[in-house]
Amino acid sequence: MDLKAAIRSIPDFPKKGIVFRDITTLIIEPKTFKSALDLMEKFCRDKKADKIVAIESRGFIFGGALSDRLGIGFIPVRKRGKLPAKTVTQEYELEYGTDIIEMHADAVKPGEKVIVIDDLVATGGTLEAACKMIEKVGGEVAGIAVLIDLAFIPWRKRLGKYDILTLIQYDSE
Amino acid sequence: MDLKAAIRSIPDFPKKGIVFRDITTLIIEPKTFKSALDLMEKFCRDKKADKIVAIESRGFIFGGALSDRLGIGFIPVRKRGKLPAKTVTQEYELEYGTDIIEMHADAVKPGEKVIVIDDLVATGGTLEAACKMIEKVGGEVAGIAVLIDLAFIPWRKRLGKYDILTLIQYDSE
Repeated sequence: MDLKAAIRSIPDFPKKGIVFRDITTLIIEPKTFKSALDLMEKFCRDKKADKIVAIESRGFIFGGALSDRLGIGFIPVRKRGKLPAKTVTQEYELEYGTDIIEMHADAVKPGEKVIVIDDLVATGGTLEAACKMIEKVGGEVAGIAVLIDLAFIPWRKRLGKYDILTLIQYDSE
Repeated sequence: MDLKAAIRSIPDFPKKGIVFRDITTLIIEPKTFKSALDLMEKFCRDKKADKIVAIESRGFIFGGALSDRLGIGFIPVRKRGKLPAKTVTQEYELEYGTDIIEMHADAVKPGEKVIVIDDLVATGGTLEAACKMIEKVGGEVAGIAVLIDLAFIPWRKRLGKYDILTLIQYDSE
């Protein structure tokens, strides 16, 4: 199935010169949403994942469905200050400055194989931070699955050591 | 299944005097996540839903899985400025001041039956705003499904005209 055709490209969002790749047109169409989930599900099964770790907030859409399909636990990675219990944290770089994401410290158990889910990889900064948190608590990043790959951004220098599934690639802006 | 037992209650979060009901302990456990989704799925089927509208961001976890189970489209309601195409917006009251949520204007088609999904109902302000947006574009709110019901807060005065499924009730803080 041509998943790329289901993505809506919106020029100059959120600012001039950026082409925003809008996934809402893919997830509103049951056939394309199912097809994307089928591919991610197979990847998770091949990696024998014990848990799904999904990144706020679009990662939750795919992560929730995958956790349900696979019958394995769902763990949210959230922006700072949203998770109520004891957390592990990780700082990551933004275009200007830094930000912090968090995960509950007791969520991933030592030795567990985890798949990290998000909607898109661009710089790879958030995904790298999520992987570092998982490893801090003794988990194993069995793989990363994302819908959209902005392949013209050199995210592989950050995430090169992980096995990554991307379903739709853009080679230029 | 005792879903309430799977919720972790955390005193004084996000501020003193508030008991935070933490759903992460329910969704990390496949049995309780599945059980909650089974009940929501039945509700959506009974209502003959055409679309799932889920509220950012914890609503996405349940909404993604339900959309997948039912084979119907997923529509995100997001905080202001996140959705890239033309949106419909709705203001709602916070404890101090107001906020705005948005939905893509072309997402719900006139006459479609929609189920609104979130993790929790407290004041009902966000859910009411989501319902108003759906109605603005001609959709029909066939029902609302949430995991947690803070029943000691009088949200029914806002949402009384809708059919609402809540899975876990708290009668006091």
